[in-house]
Amino acid sequence: MKTSEYLDGIKNQNTSILGKAITLIESSLKNDKKQAAELIEKCIPLSGNSIRVGISGTPGVGKSTFIENLGINLTKKYKIAVLAIDPSSELSKGSILGDKTRMVKLANSKSAFIRPSPNKGQLGGISNHTKDAITLCEAAGFNIIFIETVGVGQSEAMVASITDFFIYLTLAQNGDQLQFIKKGTLELSDVIIINKSDQNKQKVRETTLALKHTLKNMNYRKTQAVFSCSALLKIHLDKIWQYIEQLHQEKIHNGEIEQNRKTQNFFWFKYIIESEFKNLIFENERFKKKLQELQYDPPKNPRKMAVEIINKIIKEDLR
Amino acid sequence: MKTSEYLDGIKNQNTSILGKAITLIESSLKNDKKQAAELIEKCIPLSGNSIRVGISGTPGVGKSTFIENLGINLTKKYKIAVLAIDPSSELSKGSILGDKTRMVKLANSKSAFIRPSPNKGQLGGISNHTKDAITLCEAAGFNIIFIETVGVGQSEAMVASITDFFIYLTLAQNGDQLQFIKKGTLELSDVIIINKSDQNKQKVRETTLALKHTLKNMNYRKTQAVFSCSALLKIHLDKIWQYIEQLHQEKIHNGEIEQNRKTQNFFWFKYIIESEFKNLIFENERFKKKLQELQYDPPKNPRKMAVEIINKIIKEDLR
Repeated sequence: MKTSEYLDGIKNQNTSILGKAITLIESSLKNDKKQAAELIEKCIPLSGNSIRVGISGTPGVGKSTFIENLGINLTKKYKIAVLAIDPSSELSKGSILGDKTRMVKLANSKSAFIRPSPNKGQLGGISNHTKDAITLCEAAGFNIIFIETVGVGQSEAMVASITDFFIYLTLAQNGDQLQFIKKGTLELSDVIIINKSDQNKQKVRETTLALKHTLKNMNYRKTQAVFSCSALLKIHLDKIWQYIEQLHQEKIHNGEIEQNRKTQNFFWFKYIIESEFKNLIFENERFKKKLQELQYDPPKNPRKMAVEIINKIIKEDLR
Repeated sequence: MKTSEYLDGIKNQNTSILGKAITLIESSLKNDKKQAAELIEKCIPLSGNSIRVGISGTPGVGKSTFIENLGINLTKKYKIAVLAIDPSSELSKGSILGDKTRMVKLANSKSAFIRPSPNKGQLGGISNHTKDAITLCEAAGFNIIFIETVGVGQSEAMVASITDFFIYLTLAQNGDQLQFIKKGTLELSDVIIINKSDQNKQKVRETTLALKHTLKNMNYRKTQAVFSCSALLKIHLDKIWQYIEQLHQEKIHNGEIEQNRKTQNFFWFKYIIESEFKNLIFENERFKKKLQELQYDPPKNPRKMAVEIINKIIKEDLR
């Protein structure tokens, strides 16, 4: 397919072509990368008009149900894209998010686009290309983009670095055990939601209060809210979305969204430099061959061998 | 100082020169790096004859007391080096391990060498150069080398990747709460020690049993032991060391130590390739200048800018 065909498809909000375009930008083939770069450059002027929402939480907390039931409601007014990142394969080689039966109802809506992204072993599972996938979705007219991840390694920080709002889903806990959310996750979160609020209401109230108290003491210098909901029974989903939408309006007006996205672009620039530079050597054919040899006969002096090989590959292959 | 002077000092077990040599290998200056590479190459044939022991645990668990009181005992028979890695500066800009008053008694022993390593922002605090520091210490005749770290990020996996044994220090916990040690840490550990065993003996017994039970169920395919001790009151320190020494003897005889170190050299080779390659760009003067500019005016298309700059710097500066 030509770049102009991809672009026309995206402009015409053709989700089948959008899906193919995301596959293109995820490709590591040299020609695909070149075409992907052209396409992204053309989509950037068409992008930016969405609320970008990151969602994290441990497996089983109800992220998919939350996105599906909130999403179905939102499709009445908006076009919803869901980019689901699956960091599990890195650890267990199994896939949590690959399950095709997830979010079936939302997937059947004409106003929704759901895309599970394979893990490429990068920083806790978020792909090098997720930010570009957002660009394409926005160019295709999606107004709300959910990025779903499981809280493993650095994936949450990476998701927060490409979104306007970060939601953390959790369950009611014993009050004396508030370390169940990592400090780093608390700090990243704009909205913390205690799901399954229909079960054990007393514990839900206690956890809500304890979380509010903790956030107040932490004093993170950003607006943070705590909600409870039942994603399954659709309790409080509207209230939560109203809160996000209103906060988004405020942040559009005071310039925070724009400033935040600029800062994110700088961060992302450094991240791409690092990962692309790493790819230059780890995807070099001669290097891969050498690596296979060394696996069976490791160098006595790893540093010396490393420096020699870097110099050789740079001199001979990377001109 | 000439390389031969460093080498003679190390061979003569001069700890002052050993300290300077470690400063040399930690330097990022081009000439220092060249000299460091020469020195390391000459020290490698003199190295290898030590028990390399990694020690981790949360702040306050008693790692320093454990190393000091075990170390003082061991200096009667052995020469002890302690390389303390301080990952805290990455997070809080403060230093936990920089405190000069730590391990005063051990530091005053003529058979001990204590070296706090500054954090350079690499993988959870372990320095790119810690493995080379071990080489120098071994060349200087140290028989037991402790690598101390705080369990942040990937620092534990990195420490395990340069040591023969990994010790995790913890405290007695409520029996129903065994997630207090991360699964990854459990898997890395050869020895898990519950410190401060003089306090709340019942809880210590329960935690010991629970940990043994967990390890048995996990079935990690390596010999793992659980001990309790009081580092402060020097209770069980001898027993723990006897266990490690005996296991070390067994693993020397069955070739496990040698095989493990070979595997580590391969891992370390890949790690150095990655970090040195990253340094090539992030320490490039033109790139640093460009980065400063972009901080105030981030690119609209981070990927395009990243690829352009990589190509430019490789073409013009990295020949």
